[in-house]
Amino acid sequence: MNSKIRFLKEQLKSLNLEGMIISNPINISYLIGIDKSSEGTLLITKKEVIYITDSRYIEAVNNVITIDDEIIVTDVRNISKEEYENFFMFCENVGFEEDYVTYSEYKRIMHTYKVNNLVETEKLIEKQRVIKTEEEIELTRKACELTDDCFKHLLKFIKKGLTEKQIALEIEKYFKENGADDISFEPIVASGKNSSMPHAVPTDKKIESGDIITIDFGCIYKGYCSDMTRTIFVDYVKEEYKKVYDLVLKNQELTLKEYAEGKNSKVITQMVVNDFKINRFDLVHGLGHGTGLEIHELPFVNNRREHILKQNMIVTDEPGIYIPGQFGVRIEDTVLVGKSAGEPLTKSDKGYVVI
Amino acid sequence: MNSKIRFLKEQLKSLNLEGMIISNPINISYLIGIDKSSEGTLLITKKEVIYITDSRYIEAVNNVITIDDEIIVTDVRNISKEEYENFFMFCENVGFEEDYVTYSEYKRIMHTYKVNNLVETEKLIEKQRVIKTEEEIELTRKACELTDDCFKHLLKFIKKGLTEKQIALEIEKYFKENGADDISFEPIVASGKNSSMPHAVPTDKKIESGDIITIDFGCIYKGYCSDMTRTIFVDYVKEEYKKVYDLVLKNQELTLKEYAEGKNSKVITQMVVNDFKINRFDLVHGLGHGTGLEIHELPFVNNRREHILKQNMIVTDEPGIYIPGQFGVRIEDTVLVGKSAGEPLTKSDKGYVVI
Repeated sequence: MNSKIRFLKEQLKSLNLEGMIISNPINISYLIGIDKSSEGTLLITKKEVIYITDSRYIEAVNNVITIDDEIIVTDVRNISKEEYENFFMFCENVGFEEDYVTYSEYKRIMHTYKVNNLVETEKLIEKQRVIKTEEEIELTRKACELTDDCFKHLLKFIKKGLTEKQIALEIEKYFKENGADDISFEPIVASGKNSSMPHAVPTDKKIESGDIITIDFGCIYKGYCSDMTRTIFVDYVKEEYKKVYDLVLKNQELTLKEYAEGKNSKVITQMVVNDFKINRFDLVHGLGHGTGLEIHELPFVNNRREHILKQNMIVTDEPGIYIPGQFGVRIEDTVLVGKSAGEPLTKSDKGYVVI
Repeated sequence: MNSKIRFLKEQLKSLNLEGMIISNPINISYLIGIDKSSEGTLLITKKEVIYITDSRYIEAVNNVITIDDEIIVTDVRNISKEEYENFFMFCENVGFEEDYVTYSEYKRIMHTYKVNNLVETEKLIEKQRVIKTEEEIELTRKACELTDDCFKHLLKFIKKGLTEKQIALEIEKYFKENGADDISFEPIVASGKNSSMPHAVPTDKKIESGDIITIDFGCIYKGYCSDMTRTIFVDYVKEEYKKVYDLVLKNQELTLKEYAEGKNSKVITQMVVNDFKINRFDLVHGLGHGTGLEIHELPFVNNRREHILKQNMIVTDEPGIYIPGQFGVRIEDTVLVGKSAGEPLTKSDKGYVVI
């Protein structure tokens, strides 16, 4: 049995759960290594681990799973009503994913399996996913390397007269042609005034001399996501931009140092909020978020909730300042939480980059 | 009040529901015309229609909604516990979307609103979406036109030596540069043996002389999806391909004639299944599916369930034959169901196309 499933089984035991019905394909992908797009249900029963899927995925799944995994893969059409009822026979408490399963699916589960008590598991597996294995870290490293390579390419590619949309499309093209599975989210390319919106969607605005450009992008490599933002300048850096850029960068680098074992995510965020306040700016979005099989996953770094950071979490560090109607600056790395400081996995230049 | 909401309110009345809580963003987009990516909840109460969203979307939503719509847009942060409880005060039965709402959300709804009886609505709005309005048909027409234009472009673009992946990327690039919102799904470009898999993912295989190529693709225009498949040939058409191609095309065109008011989707499918059987082939997937705000929506045309077709439904017509390890042929149009026959909205050539 693989170490991820072994860990989960220990957790179930400590929660007094005799099994679990796992429906979220991301969690199933995490536990048994199959593609995120596969559809099926993973059952952790007292004796066995069973993946129920359909003919579309059986072959692909069997290619990934080995005998050592001790996972039984079965076609949904070959399971009888009685077999469904036997899976959790004599079980008192069985967990399910209340944040993923729809109300109809919940009723279907109640109807299909014989379970006395279906128990909410409160993101049990999502919380397990927070600490990355060596293999997960390596895949994220590779996604981040591709992201740095893409940024290098962009610095040569971006020219005055190109539109934000054209640059966003080039990012997607670069990733798909250079070994990534896909982009990890729709790239943000926001130039001039557009950079004042944190979630700007690329427009037909053309790049002009004097522009500031925020580029927020990332890719997926063998399932794992990267996320990086750089804010760059065209021809020269206006004085008004420098003050804001320096303040954002200072806080981005301070945060990097704080991404260490035992640190409190809320306290780190408050530090940035305070430094922005002193300079009469606000932090209008979170300071960071976990990345992994999903582009946004636990832990979320903001000043609403506390998380204690642990080694081998992977979290973004992305302070930003946005002046409505004028411009904005955001600088972001994907960061591996370390023993005494964070290690940025994206490594592109953070000085003034002028193209 | 717009006609879609008026129709929904009449349906609620006939179901003895005094209101509805709508959570699915596609259904909300359909009813009030806002972007599918907006997050929020739409409440149909006895007196009012209220869209509860957050600061990220308020501005965009207010740009779309007019006074005539009689929709109250409000920020989630401005609603008190009492207001939530008042929305459905004295209501006996209120509908919710059991196929969209997670079990946790269901519990939150129960906790937040004062509702005696939360009632499952069994895809009420999805079923309403099946018959398209004139405006929806026009937008789909435009998406289909762009798809035909893209196909024309591809016939010039595709050359021996290009990979399936490069062609798939060109499709995406073409749509994004020519006015589409996005692709409606990841394009399938399957050449040679790869065409034998109905859901093939583009590979690094290069296009060669003698290849058969299945291209299944579509775009989104102002929210509405198109879907078209053409199977084309490189340099010449092998004799073995012709027999299968002709049989698929014959059935695709027969189906087109059957897509008319009052016809039964199961009977139409069975007709194709039978003709394939006589020729010793199987129809391994459905014959078609609705398209609209989603690429796959009701009605589904297959031989498992019966739907009676009605004018102004939009449904794909996509028979295919796949010979494992050898090759496959699929031909597909997006079709407007008519009074006496279907009207293909995608109009690209269906004869042997040799490049």
